Amino acid sequence: MKRNVLIIGAGGVAHVAAHKCAQNNILLGDIHIASRTLSKCHAIIASIKAKGSQRGPGLLKAHELDAMDVAATKALIRSTGAQIVINVGSPFLNMSVMTACIETGAAYLDTAIHEDPSQVCEAPPWYGNYEWKRRDACLKAGVTAILGVGFDPGVVNAYGRFAMDAYFDKVDSIDIIDINAGNHNRYFATNFDPEINFREFTSTVWSWEDSQWKANAMFERKHDWDLPVVGKRTAYLTGHDELHSMSKNLGVPNIRFWMGFGEHYINVFNVLNNLGLLSEKPVRTAEGLEVVPLKVVKAVLPDPSSLAPTYTGKTCIGDLVKGTKNGQPREVFVYNVCDHKESYKEVGSQAISYTAGVPVVAAAMLIADGVWDVGQMVNVEELDPKPFIGLMNRIGLVSRVRDAAGERVLDPYAEAPAKSRSSTPVAETTR
Amino acid sequence: MKRNVLIIGAGGVAHVAAHKCAQNNILLGDIHIASRTLSKCHAIIASIKAKGSQRGPGLLKAHELDAMDVAATKALIRSTGAQIVINVGSPFLNMSVMTACIETGAAYLDTAIHEDPSQVCEAPPWYGNYEWKRRDACLKAGVTAILGVGFDPGVVNAYGRFAMDAYFDKVDSIDIIDINAGNHNRYFATNFDPEINFREFTSTVWSWEDSQWKANAMFERKHDWDLPVVGKRTAYLTGHDELHSMSKNLGVPNIRFWMGFGEHYINVFNVLNNLGLLSEKPVRTAEGLEVVPLKVVKAVLPDPSSLAPTYTGKTCIGDLVKGTKNGQPREVFVYNVCDHKESYKEVGSQAISYTAGVPVVAAAMLIADGVWDVGQMVNVEELDPKPFIGLMNRIGLVSRVRDAAGERVLDPYAEAPAKSRSSTPVAETTR
Repeated sequence: MKRNVLIIGAGGVAHVAAHKCAQNNILLGDIHIASRTLSKCHAIIASIKAKGSQRGPGLLKAHELDAMDVAATKALIRSTGAQIVINVGSPFLNMSVMTACIETGAAYLDTAIHEDPSQVCEAPPWYGNYEWKRRDACLKAGVTAILGVGFDPGVVNAYGRFAMDAYFDKVDSIDIIDINAGNHNRYFATNFDPEINFREFTSTVWSWEDSQWKANAMFERKHDWDLPVVGKRTAYLTGHDELHSMSKNLGVPNIRFWMGFGEHYINVFNVLNNLGLLSEKPVRTAEGLEVVPLKVVKAVLPDPSSLAPTYTGKTCIGDLVKGTKNGQPREVFVYNVCDHKESYKEVGSQAISYTAGVPVVAAAMLIADGVWDVGQMVNVEELDPKPFIGLMNRIGLVSRVRDAAGERVLDPYAEAPAKSRSSTPVAETTR
Repeated sequence: MKRNVLIIGAGGVAHVAAHKCAQNNILLGDIHIASRTLSKCHAIIASIKAKGSQRGPGLLKAHELDAMDVAATKALIRSTGAQIVINVGSPFLNMSVMTACIETGAAYLDTAIHEDPSQVCEAPPWYGNYEWKRRDACLKAGVTAILGVGFDPGVVNAYGRFAMDAYFDKVDSIDIIDINAGNHNRYFATNFDPEINFREFTSTVWSWEDSQWKANAMFERKHDWDLPVVGKRTAYLTGHDELHSMSKNLGVPNIRFWMGFGEHYINVFNVLNNLGLLSEKPVRTAEGLEVVPLKVVKAVLPDPSSLAPTYTGKTCIGDLVKGTKNGQPREVFVYNVCDHKESYKEVGSQAISYTAGVPVVAAAMLIADGVWDVGQMVNVEELDPKPFIGLMNRIGLVSRVRDAAGERVLDPYAEAPAKSRSSTPVAETTR
């Protein structure tokens, strides 16, 4: 049982997480928001007040923090009494914030894998390069650290685990499909920090096939999917965080990630990438100025948070799982559909931020409740997915399932009877 | 009669001009090359020596010069004894170099209109904003200043004037068509300084139609032309220097400039332009660095001079002139075809640099001879085109003509008998 939350970061996902924490502060206690830019924290608090998101009494406070500074982060954790840290700042911060948590005993949550600013796309599994090196330290300190608990990674890991438990004897493949069928009504924009967004696509695409890592180039492989609500969409094989833990934890031979891109996005991306404008390595202008091209591209693109007011349409993200049950082939799609306009109406953000911000708060609530307070480092698929999916159904992200029996809301306890093979969470058994 | 040449600039056009001056140094005397970067001047001299371009004895010397510094430029003109200055540096330098010429009495030549780094596409006629304000000063000092005497502007101005004189009683339209049908075998590159190249296309396209300025957007109007050697090509209405003097000097109601672009060039241009990456106005990165996006684009693109070794194919640039002769409608295309590979073989440059560098040296030779040493500021169409076209035929750029009688080499004295209405050069009559 833990209380009081420190949110690190004040971007789009932090905005949603702060709203959701405030909506659930009777359970979570005080809510603190810390960022290098204090004014962005204040803006989030003003938005929470304007929307009337805060449910019960309790602190709602802004702090200036450079979260690369472990000592300062530890001091803030201690002074706020935060027992849960939600790290939704830049992925460059993960290891610093995690260290501060290990050294103070606070629970740690994030939504994206750690990145080194100077490296793009390291050797798989990516978690092995940074986070997993701290597993023993977490276990020794009894610190709960749940890695990558946004939507993807995060909810899609839980969907994969849930589908395996509930619907299959043997799973052959999990295809995670991420479609944003929304329209931001700009010439071009990324839905989150352009620097982080583009870094996902500028190097080797790793996927897990036939129980080994397979390398492809971005936009080399595509597939047309026919999905609920958003219809027929083309998605491209993309490297993504969740493959790097699910491949290790689930024993499934094929796990792939497919992201939907329109032709216009691909064209702009290809032009910028081919010219070298997405490089994280500095170039020198004729005038002698050293500058990282990707940072200039970021500077000219719209601020992702500016897109929300006019964003329309829906996202559809889910896991298409194929395998066998009782000797018969079976195919199940577990998914969520989120509406940009409704997200904006509720918390002032578009659906991309909303789908990443709600799950991390659901996870924080499960830690506060003790259900997911496992006292060690885990990826989401190592935890019982049922309370997570059930809680999200109640706080804003409703999961659904499509299979031979049709489409329906996914009630995890109704769909997965107690006899399913791993009703006991992995992480709790290994504790 | 003037001797000794100072070339200012050490880019692609300067490289060709220096080779051509060396090939004709028996007439031109000493050849001096000056640039901010001394090593680039030395590289040109090394290339001249390697190719054996120098015809007669005489100096061939490199100088370090910031040509924005008028006093330094004057001192160099005096110390070298240069009576002819070929300014083929950045178009940002024109007014400084011209001032140095006016104050020393040296003849002045350039190949592109003056630009202010902070302004893109000023009010037409562009020459009125800078150069023409010095007409009186040139006349008073008796200084010959020939503006824009590369290929376009330059040769195309002479073609327009020649066609009017030789083939028509009345001209209705001159369409200048510039097609580079070459292939540099790179993903994307500009054929000269990307900064200057893109500045041409990022604002209003001015053309001269029905005897007035008409504004269009870049890529708004296109036309398919069927040209000698290069065949059918799509070209786009483009703003260009020569329109801004020919409209004033020729009395022709329609003068337009069309530049050929492939779909790939247009796509890359549009992406960069729509994103704001071609802007000359600085932006600030998240890290607080102030940087001009266009200068970063320039930094990531190939150096135009690096393209020459693998460049293949041909350019075709000319004037399609329509009007009447003896009451009958007539149409004549006066043009040049230049081969990238042959240019490289001769002087180590591609055809874009070659077609700009040869004419300015032909003009210098006509000044040295006295034929074009008019003691005032002129644009090319104000001068007798016949000696210019005739000389270029002998030194590397052969002009051709296509009309109802077929295609043939343009021998200006054979094509334009003495009875043609302006066998006396305009500029000489006004002297």
